[in-house]
Amino acid sequence: MKSIRIFAPATIANLSCGFDVLGCCLDTIGDEMTLTLTASNEIRITKITGAQLPLETTKNVAGVAVNALVAALNQPVGVDIEIHKRIKAGSGIGSSAASSAGAVWAVNHLLGNPFTPHELISFAMEGERLASGNAHADNVAPALLGGFTFVRSYAPLDVLKLPSPKELVATVIHPQIEIKTADARAIIKQNVALKKAITQWGNLGGFISGLFTEDYNLISRSLDDVIIEPLRSILIPEFETVKEVALSTGALGCGISGSGPSIFTLNRGYQTAQQVAQAIKNVYQHTGIDFEIHISKINTQGIKTLSS
Amino acid sequence: MKSIRIFAPATIANLSCGFDVLGCCLDTIGDEMTLTLTASNEIRITKITGAQLPLETTKNVAGVAVNALVAALNQPVGVDIEIHKRIKAGSGIGSSAASSAGAVWAVNHLLGNPFTPHELISFAMEGERLASGNAHADNVAPALLGGFTFVRSYAPLDVLKLPSPKELVATVIHPQIEIKTADARAIIKQNVALKKAITQWGNLGGFISGLFTEDYNLISRSLDDVIIEPLRSILIPEFETVKEVALSTGALGCGISGSGPSIFTLNRGYQTAQQVAQAIKNVYQHTGIDFEIHISKINTQGIKTLSS
Repeated sequence: MKSIRIFAPATIANLSCGFDVLGCCLDTIGDEMTLTLTASNEIRITKITGAQLPLETTKNVAGVAVNALVAALNQPVGVDIEIHKRIKAGSGIGSSAASSAGAVWAVNHLLGNPFTPHELISFAMEGERLASGNAHADNVAPALLGGFTFVRSYAPLDVLKLPSPKELVATVIHPQIEIKTADARAIIKQNVALKKAITQWGNLGGFISGLFTEDYNLISRSLDDVIIEPLRSILIPEFETVKEVALSTGALGCGISGSGPSIFTLNRGYQTAQQVAQAIKNVYQHTGIDFEIHISKINTQGIKTLSS
Repeated sequence: MKSIRIFAPATIANLSCGFDVLGCCLDTIGDEMTLTLTASNEIRITKITGAQLPLETTKNVAGVAVNALVAALNQPVGVDIEIHKRIKAGSGIGSSAASSAGAVWAVNHLLGNPFTPHELISFAMEGERLASGNAHADNVAPALLGGFTFVRSYAPLDVLKLPSPKELVATVIHPQIEIKTADARAIIKQNVALKKAITQWGNLGGFISGLFTEDYNLISRSLDDVIIEPLRSILIPEFETVKEVALSTGALGCGISGSGPSIFTLNRGYQTAQQVAQAIKNVYQHTGIDFEIHISKINTQGIKTLSS
């Protein structure tokens, strides 16, 4: 039967100034998935390695996302899904999004691409709804489109792909503690001071302009979050020290990846990213908390075919 | 003595999705000013036509702005300022900004440009502080830099010039009622729902992306204001009808210019702008309120020398 093996990338959502709207796609960390068309007319999750996750289709984000695609297609589809998790659940780098986005992308590919990558976003969002109670797009969009993405609007859904300045390299430290997305959302206040909102949208506009003009200094000045980070960062051990050390080592910016606990930095050039990763590592080694560090250029392609 | 006669343009601030940060510069409406260097070591306002405004330097926005420039220069300057107002005070299209920006631009020019246009912004902002109690930059920046401008940050001041898609043409209707900027600010709530702030910064990011990619459809989708317009529009007679008619006639977007009462539209092409202007005119003719309508392409240059 027709089969495809894919790389489903990790992603960084929010990027400090773009809560719920900005995201970018990573290259060196992601899941592997193998999807095979079958004659069964059933969506089945046949194997999961690397994580304890339900095989039941309606309880697994990949299954739910593919079900949404099949419902829109309005014709029976049989597919077996194998998921090999490398991105840990609750890490804040889009673990559920990788599974949701990867699954719909692969099924779409196997069916001869009846949907555009933009159209796949809304299907993958159904997986996010299952995972966190909120159908957010800021991880599935960069996984599906690659590079930097921007959710202009949720209703109607309107997602843009933004330019990726070539020298940008991300680092991510994932402290091995779990913060559930739902908990991280609960800590956020439902009202913000207009003055802070203006500061935030000033930075968001600056960041987007910086991507278009490849102005690394402007990108750096704009990577600031006066609304969410002050609330969420208290959930992350040593956040302030990591940020201080990252910036003083040359990072353009440092913030919470998605809803945490991962902390990301954006850097100009691979060498700086390496130095920043080492400096962060030095901080975290003293905490007694297990952690992983990733260094990655921006993945402008998104999901990749490994074999088919 | 060395003298210069300039055109000091009207400007549209906020542009729906960019409260306090976005602005653009107009071409067909603006003040004229004549500034002459003197041996007096004094800043004097010698003549004002077209408006009842104080000649006293410390009470006139142009005088205050030039005083700020001279203080930064730290050497005595003598200059006589004539102001010929065409932009009505309290119109919402940057009347005070034109005088402040025009004055500092002209003095800087007469002195051999000791300051960059970006540096002049903070001097002109002192005029805005006198006019409205708030040193905002979203009118003086487009007047000084031309085109579309974006205030990334107020502290420190960080202003960007954005691209101007060539086919954009603005219309402005100025109903001849006065709304003081201070009053228009007082109606605004100091807290906003985070959900609305996200909608707003989604649109702002969409608008900026649309300027960079010359995507008129995206610009149109992004010209929406869910925070300020619902509050301020009640101060403007027939706002909803004007907006409805403008959009159905083909305007890309329609909103309050600055703090009102002027209403602006952005349009693709001059012909559409003319049709929109006519449609708005038809609405306003029935109100019994005097009004002026302006049609203008985006002025990418800003302040212009008329003679020197």
